[in-house]
Amino acid sequence: MVAEDVVAALVAELGAHQVVSDPHVAASYAHDEAEWAPCGTPAAVVRPRSTQEVAATVAVCARLGVPLVGRGAGTGLSGAANSGEGWVVVSFERMNAIVEIDPAEATATVQPGVVNDDLRAAAAEKGLWYPPDPASSPWSTIGGNVSTNAGGLCCVKYGVTRDYVLGLEAVVGSGDVVRLGRRTAKGVTGYDLCGLMVGAEGTLGLVTEVTLRLRPLRQGPQHTVVGYFDTLAQAGAAVAAVAAAGVVPSALELIDEFCLRAVDEWKNMGLAAEGAGLLLGRSDAPGEAGIAEAQQILACFEGAGATFATRSTDSQEAEALFAARRLAYPALERLGPLLTEDVCVPRAQVPQMLERIEAAGRRFDTRIGNIAHAGDGNLHPLFIVPAGDEAAKARAQEAFEVIVDEAIALGGTVTGEHGVGVLKKRGAAAELGPRVLEMHQAVKSALDPLGIFNPGKVFG
Amino acid sequence: MVAEDVVAALVAELGAHQVVSDPHVAASYAHDEAEWAPCGTPAAVVRPRSTQEVAATVAVCARLGVPLVGRGAGTGLSGAANSGEGWVVVSFERMNAIVEIDPAEATATVQPGVVNDDLRAAAAEKGLWYPPDPASSPWSTIGGNVSTNAGGLCCVKYGVTRDYVLGLEAVVGSGDVVRLGRRTAKGVTGYDLCGLMVGAEGTLGLVTEVTLRLRPLRQGPQHTVVGYFDTLAQAGAAVAAVAAAGVVPSALELIDEFCLRAVDEWKNMGLAAEGAGLLLGRSDAPGEAGIAEAQQILACFEGAGATFATRSTDSQEAEALFAARRLAYPALERLGPLLTEDVCVPRAQVPQMLERIEAAGRRFDTRIGNIAHAGDGNLHPLFIVPAGDEAAKARAQEAFEVIVDEAIALGGTVTGEHGVGVLKKRGAAAELGPRVLEMHQAVKSALDPLGIFNPGKVFG
Repeated sequence: MVAEDVVAALVAELGAHQVVSDPHVAASYAHDEAEWAPCGTPAAVVRPRSTQEVAATVAVCARLGVPLVGRGAGTGLSGAANSGEGWVVVSFERMNAIVEIDPAEATATVQPGVVNDDLRAAAAEKGLWYPPDPASSPWSTIGGNVSTNAGGLCCVKYGVTRDYVLGLEAVVGSGDVVRLGRRTAKGVTGYDLCGLMVGAEGTLGLVTEVTLRLRPLRQGPQHTVVGYFDTLAQAGAAVAAVAAAGVVPSALELIDEFCLRAVDEWKNMGLAAEGAGLLLGRSDAPGEAGIAEAQQILACFEGAGATFATRSTDSQEAEALFAARRLAYPALERLGPLLTEDVCVPRAQVPQMLERIEAAGRRFDTRIGNIAHAGDGNLHPLFIVPAGDEAAKARAQEAFEVIVDEAIALGGTVTGEHGVGVLKKRGAAAELGPRVLEMHQAVKSALDPLGIFNPGKVFG
Repeated sequence: MVAEDVVAALVAELGAHQVVSDPHVAASYAHDEAEWAPCGTPAAVVRPRSTQEVAATVAVCARLGVPLVGRGAGTGLSGAANSGEGWVVVSFERMNAIVEIDPAEATATVQPGVVNDDLRAAAAEKGLWYPPDPASSPWSTIGGNVSTNAGGLCCVKYGVTRDYVLGLEAVVGSGDVVRLGRRTAKGVTGYDLCGLMVGAEGTLGLVTEVTLRLRPLRQGPQHTVVGYFDTLAQAGAAVAAVAAAGVVPSALELIDEFCLRAVDEWKNMGLAAEGAGLLLGRSDAPGEAGIAEAQQILACFEGAGATFATRSTDSQEAEALFAARRLAYPALERLGPLLTEDVCVPRAQVPQMLERIEAAGRRFDTRIGNIAHAGDGNLHPLFIVPAGDEAAKARAQEAFEVIVDEAIALGGTVTGEHGVGVLKKRGAAAELGPRVLEMHQAVKSALDPLGIFNPGKVFG
């Protein structure tokens, strides 16, 4: 199928305004932020305004046998949204309406192109809260978050995207619109096909509307605890100690000294960096309970050998530190091509995993920064490579794969929240094993018999 | 395939001790507590002691083309665990070990035959808590809870079984042992086949081990609010008011006067019954926050027209009322054959749904008691029929189906937590629609190509 024919068929169905065929513009939709992942040039980019237009697009692709891939804001880090050569990219940028926020049911119904932070702001106006907060929340969309089952900082206490998706509308098969899940608080009618669609990275269909569970807006202050450590292993030990103490913090984040400095150099925030890195713990428990939890977290930091630990009374400083955590990724991106890891290990294995990451960096002579949703055991080693240095890139890739295998060896998973995409396919296969991969292939073939939805991603 | 051949093949593989073929004993394993659901006589009951024996049983059934159905304690209410004629029942009564409770990860790994309350007690010894608490918790097993995605009283705040299943081991296909899910706090490697298995009512495989997420044990007292109402619609309005106020109670239960009296007559608990029924609200928020929440719930009860409402200071009375809620089902079972509804509607629709239930009772001249996880919108109308009165049974069944349709019409679901089994198949088909049913059939065929796992349940 030549690209011109695909464009012509789409334009005939949707009109020229919904179809981008200029190759330079289309190329800007070709990949997400996983720069190291391969991608092809799309035949066309469709920017639908409605579920009907998505269905029509899928029907055209089904008829022509052309693969298609959905795209939110393109902030993904595993290449899941990357186009193959001659594919159709469906960009949800125009389907960005908050359809309804229902305070009585504590739900929101949104189109996939709604930006995560925009939903959070709209919910807050009604006294409600949408918890999942990936660091990309100012840019990333709910559709992308659903597709990757995105996590974030508050997930250690409040869970990930799938925990908030009650129901959704999707276009499946050769262009059929279905509703999966429900609008009620509970429901067990049939298979959890809604949950199956979440995190499927667009390989089973395109999500066109999502009904999300919300929580009451949090009241009162959060209590922040900051701890500086001489070694990352000590910081890891503090994380394991918090878990063992039975405290569930509302955030427990790690930033190493390298990442903290990178943010500071970029934003000039005047952040103090000392030792190997710092932990940021938080409690949002109400009243005295919050202060008690913060004290427990502080005791765990001190017990693990923090060189300096304190319950922050300076809320501006606390916010600056959390902002630094969120800005670490773009700050490091400024320094050169960046490869991001996303392994997740049992909490007790965090110190061990951090040591193995350091060892891999030494072994492959690769600079590795570390940020982590440490309370979840979800680590994000960041590999920084001098631009144009192919040998350094090859070494970083080797270190990346070694770390993936170490995570599996420690009882962990190769991806905590970014998804498999194309970067983690080898690791995912190693983690799942051949029989479970067979089950994946069987489900894929059952629900996408034409094989047009984002083929070759995740597995296969 | 004659039953003798099935028994002989199983005995050859497993030994005589694991296989029950006495027809009278086997008959006692033929059905769950949904007495109105049809069932057949099993060819054999297998009582495996290990995953390997489950796998061997599945392999025999796959070879002979004989269907099989898993069974926990048989407390299900939809007929999901019912045997067909000549099937093999796999009873997990001997696989009842708590393999591990890991305080550092806050997880429990258990065999499917572990009783829900036994897990809760074992977790409590380590300062941990397993929240899902179906009213059957003294008897029902984790395997059955996982199979039906069981709910319970505390789910209004803490979620249902699927929210706690991190990973599981299952026997699938023609006897392959697989591990699905993970042991880490987060993880997005591949499709959520673990979540898909939860609530699949044994139609995709047999679960042989489960890794569950636990929470820290709750500290401090719960605050109970009791409200009596002249009409169920008023009680429903109070439920909607609590939801609209943004309070998330740790329980919000409805018991009507009929059910309260039935428990009292059975257990002689000296419960006060007045008006149409009562609501039991609870807050487990720590410290002052709990008292404030209880006050908010109380204000909602009073605002909706409670004839009497109070924050209970008598913890013994509060416990007795919650015990009455849990005992309502067996208490009514004493009065005659019982048919249980399990519809779930958006919270704001609870008053309307209760009115429609009353109307259906009048229209079909059927006595309907009501208990409900009201805070979830999950209602359990209970149809009581004089023993042997076939005409009354037929009328009750008509009322049952009308209520199912009313729940769908109000934006609800036909089953909040009991599952579809055989009793709700018509309603499930109406709720899901033909295209989504097709997706169910495709997934079933993909993962159970021989069609041996509990065929004909849920759909098809």
